Amino acid sequence: MSIFDFLLSRKKTTSASIAKERLQIIVAHERGSRGQPDYLPALQEELIAVIRKYVPIDQDQVQVALENQGTCSILELNITLPER
Amino acid sequence: MSIFDFLLSRKKTTSASIAKERLQIIVAHERGSRGQPDYLPALQEELIAVIRKYVPIDQDQVQVALENQGTCSILELNITLPER
Repeated sequence: MSIFDFLLSRKKTTSASIAKERLQIIVAHERGSRGQPDYLPALQEELIAVIRKYVPIDQDQVQVALENQGTCSILELNITLPER
Repeated sequence: MSIFDFLLSRKKTTSASIAKERLQIIVAHERGSRGQPDYLPALQEELIAVIRKYVPIDQDQVQVALENQGTCSILELNITLPER
């Protein structure tokens, strides 16, 4: 499964137009033959910390989804940015 | 234009199966009515630095694409991970 298949499968559940400002981060890791520990869960907090340097993010406005399917791990962060 | 439209428009140019291990990072920022400076170019180096804590990344193996279309800014990082 590629990242595109993943995104297509989720398209139906995503509202086409959202008025609020939002930020979406997707990290997809397609592994080759070698095995490797999945580092995406550990990575997500660091990614949020980096983003937070640039835009204000409340922790409760971050939705995290992590999926493992075959050789592809996908971390998806959906952040609704607060009104200023 | 949503992130899904962006990804769909690029699907044709992406090889369906790549044997090498690879990492893809997409950051999409949908702005609301308020204006805001685009911070994605500054963000990309920091994102690579964070990822580098977890997996070995050579600078010349990072492909960066930044697109601005309407109220949506999309930063796409494609990284082919080196063989160990």
